[in-house]
Amino acid sequence: IQHGKLGVQGRQNVLVIVGDDAGFETQVYNNSVCRTPNINQLAQRSLIFRNAFTSVSSCSPSRSAILSGLPQHQNGMYGLHQGVHHFNSFDGVRSLPLILSKHSIRAGIIGKKHVGPEYVYPFEFSETEENHPILQVGRNITYMRHLARQFLQNASDERPFFLYIGFHDPHRCGSVHPQYGAFCEKFGNGEPGMGVIPDWKPIKYNPADVPVPYFVQDTPASREDIAAQYTTISRLDQGIGVILDELKLSGHLDDTLVIYTSDNGIPFPNGRTNLFDPGMAEPLLLSSPHHPRSWGQETSALTSLLDIVPTVLEWFGLDYPSYKLEGALVKLTGQSLLSLLDSQGHPTSEDRSAIFASHDLHEVTMYYPMRVIRTGQFKLIHNLNFKMPFPIDQDFFVSPTFQDILNRTRFKQKLPWYKTLKQYYYRPQWELYDITQDPKELVNLVPDAKYTQTLVALKERLLSWQNVTADPWICAPEGVLEYKGKYAEHPQCLSLYNGLGESEDVGHWMNQ
Amino acid sequence: IQHGKLGVQGRQNVLVIVGDDAGFETQVYNNSVCRTPNINQLAQRSLIFRNAFTSVSSCSPSRSAILSGLPQHQNGMYGLHQGVHHFNSFDGVRSLPLILSKHSIRAGIIGKKHVGPEYVYPFEFSETEENHPILQVGRNITYMRHLARQFLQNASDERPFFLYIGFHDPHRCGSVHPQYGAFCEKFGNGEPGMGVIPDWKPIKYNPADVPVPYFVQDTPASREDIAAQYTTISRLDQGIGVILDELKLSGHLDDTLVIYTSDNGIPFPNGRTNLFDPGMAEPLLLSSPHHPRSWGQETSALTSLLDIVPTVLEWFGLDYPSYKLEGALVKLTGQSLLSLLDSQGHPTSEDRSAIFASHDLHEVTMYYPMRVIRTGQFKLIHNLNFKMPFPIDQDFFVSPTFQDILNRTRFKQKLPWYKTLKQYYYRPQWELYDITQDPKELVNLVPDAKYTQTLVALKERLLSWQNVTADPWICAPEGVLEYKGKYAEHPQCLSLYNGLGESEDVGHWMNQ
Ligand SMILES: [Ca+2]
Ligand SMILES: [Ca+2]
Ligand SMILES: [Mg+2]
Ligand SMILES: [Mg+2]
Repeated sequence: IQHGKLGVQGRQNVLVIVGDDAGFETQVYNNSVCRTPNINQLAQRSLIFRNAFTSVSSCSPSRSAILSGLPQHQNGMYGLHQGVHHFNSFDGVRSLPLILSKHSIRAGIIGKKHVGPEYVYPFEFSETEENHPILQVGRNITYMRHLARQFLQNASDERPFFLYIGFHDPHRCGSVHPQYGAFCEKFGNGEPGMGVIPDWKPIKYNPADVPVPYFVQDTPASREDIAAQYTTISRLDQGIGVILDELKLSGHLDDTLVIYTSDNGIPFPNGRTNLFDPGMAEPLLLSSPHHPRSWGQETSALTSLLDIVPTVLEWFGLDYPSYKLEGALVKLTGQSLLSLLDSQGHPTSEDRSAIFASHDLHEVTMYYPMRVIRTGQFKLIHNLNFKMPFPIDQDFFVSPTFQDILNRTRFKQKLPWYKTLKQYYYRPQWELYDITQDPKELVNLVPDAKYTQTLVALKERLLSWQNVTADPWICAPEGVLEYKGKYAEHPQCLSLYNGLGESEDVGHWMNQ
Repeated sequence: IQHGKLGVQGRQNVLVIVGDDAGFETQVYNNSVCRTPNINQLAQRSLIFRNAFTSVSSCSPSRSAILSGLPQHQNGMYGLHQGVHHFNSFDGVRSLPLILSKHSIRAGIIGKKHVGPEYVYPFEFSETEENHPILQVGRNITYMRHLARQFLQNASDERPFFLYIGFHDPHRCGSVHPQYGAFCEKFGNGEPGMGVIPDWKPIKYNPADVPVPYFVQDTPASREDIAAQYTTISRLDQGIGVILDELKLSGHLDDTLVIYTSDNGIPFPNGRTNLFDPGMAEPLLLSSPHHPRSWGQETSALTSLLDIVPTVLEWFGLDYPSYKLEGALVKLTGQSLLSLLDSQGHPTSEDRSAIFASHDLHEVTMYYPMRVIRTGQFKLIHNLNFKMPFPIDQDFFVSPTFQDILNRTRFKQKLPWYKTLKQYYYRPQWELYDITQDPKELVNLVPDAKYTQTLVALKERLLSWQNVTADPWICAPEGVLEYKGKYAEHPQCLSLYNGLGESEDVGHWMNQ
């Protein structure tokens, strides 16, 4: 058996655990109400990231980026994979499971997959929503334990492994399975008709006790919603405990890199599908058995979930393959996080001065492309379809929290929220925030002449990233990208207005 | 061999010929300059449709609709298939070649295919851009003759056949192969470096002679563009002659139904990617060897290219299969055209009082969903992304005609056009035209109180079609469609504004 370039002693395996719409509701990130003893325990063996961000705040696009190392606009997964949306990554994408399979590393997935096509994301062990009910494979932690054991205890297989666990908790569930509550918090809780998940000890939270994040209105409805969310976060937490038990039991605790994160922000206003910080900031724990000095340490290094592929490749001692997509050489823009383990989270020589994000759709009807650069101090958001209202997904629309916003607005009741519905729907084309002064991203600095230079510099860096990642939207919305025929050598953004009127805004003529 | 329910004597085969962005530049439709003797000759053996319309004015979406009988929003091909766009029909779609293959009918395709995935559109004989240079397989009529002969002269195969010929003429070519001219009019014309297509006798047109359609500006640049287009229309015409020669040679002229049409309007302003009449009206010839009394007759019956699948199925004596997509039973909304052959084009008992169209994207960055109902008198267009400018495709943007519009507008030169660039880019959400009074679609009747009832009635019929065809955009842009969980029995459009402000506009709450 050829084990790639596995050179480093004991760097055998990787376990990636992804929460679904999970946020910072854990003591690890200073939430003292939601009980997450297992996440806490994992954090005690991990480097804790305080500035980690998803590259896109939507399930399938984010999972495609986590597994390919390429932003959604580069890998082709522009929106959700399932149903009428049916987005897919490009046939030519070399995903992590594909690369690993070519180096005799056993790739397994348990739980929510949500990406395709199958041949781009091949897992030889695959127990997902494609062959199970999603509630069983993503929320029934006893069943997940059983599947994990099956994978981990395969004694006849001595190859190193890559195991990806996709919890479906704490995703909302009210729009699809309302009988189990807004977050499926009743599913398997032992009450009549709810079934039993033997490994789960349900925890109920008092709505009066939950801290309400600044980006959610503080009302009885939202508090109840959050309390239900916490119950499923606790199930996620216990599920993580169960999986880590199985890892230990298999004897691989000391040769396995464990990564815990979430695909996108919590399903509350300004969270999922948004690229405000509540939509793109993610928990991230990196637990290496070989770096005990990093355990329990925190790092403020700017980190992207696009860094996961380079991290896993470095762990396994593998190079990213050289290949092209649509004629352009593909390069990862993420960077391995392993050196941060060595430095216990202190800055290293790498350039970690900015991370990037990009969103196109979510549901196929929800066209709202955004491009983002975030440095330690600033965030610049480019909303490409800015004249239309920000779209709301089917899942969030019927949630108690959003319905409460709609109703309070309609009936002119008190709405203790930091925005109005109109502000939420209608956004300017460009938003620039000083995160250090204005962490809630409320004061748009674009019109402020003091920030003109900052704006220009950030636009340029953002454009450069769009260029390197072959972004089809690089000229949108005011220009048309030409890159064939006489533009093959020097692709150009040609202005829709050809120098007229709104063309003054065209910030990004491109020269590759 | 089981030949389906082939009952009608001599109804053996079907030949479908599709031009690419072809329009009405033929004597058959009263153009006296562009020479098309072969189309004329086919028309003399055909019923000629004067009111035929594509269901979408974009290549892949239209071809998917022609081959599946389902509008793009129902079959999943929301935009172009190739490159970074990579739209695909849903896995479960039962396309015409798929149905035919299950009834031992030999399906072949030569030329431009532009749809996928392969298993949804399976042709056992497939010579397309997927395995040839598109110029060779779509514009080299000698090579196309060779391929057609290969298919038609397969003496060992006695099954009936369905042959689909996708000419790439008269598609633009300036953005990809500028060396061959704006329409590839020089490709194969025998000039140095251009190669030779032996079967083609190139015809050059004098820009001063061409009639300029009302929807194109009349300038030297546009006239030159049109003259180049005519040269490739003549190549298309000669290609049709070559293919029909091969049909005759194979002995199948008298047992083959021949259909000639185009996928979308001509690539000029208001044409392709638009749902104004110049974008959606198509030539359509239906030539049945068994209906000589229909030959050379004209019909004004409202016809959709969605009628092609039912027509071919009836010709072969086959039923459309019963199946579901996303839980909803699939029904064709088109109707067979064969009864119009029997009645020599006169109205029959069928309901041909309206046709429908729907567009979502073209290139993946060109989000501009539109929904249309067109009766004999009226057309209603719903522009869903109406606040953003109408998007321009890469191909058309660099065309001489559009560059001329841009430059004349910018430099404030005379622009003899019936619209301004600003009008072209910015469209109201709803457009209602009385085609009989206003064939150029210039006077929007929506604000006119006299037409309120007409507007309401048309909106209702349009909504009903969206409903029957399971349109994911049925609630857009002001509402969110809910159809799962507690809405499973009664899907609803829930207003983004919940009764506030713009909600007055929400026309389409749905009850399936
Ligand atoms: Ca998610
Ligand atoms: Ca076309
Ligand atoms: Mg989701
Ligand atoms: Mg095309």
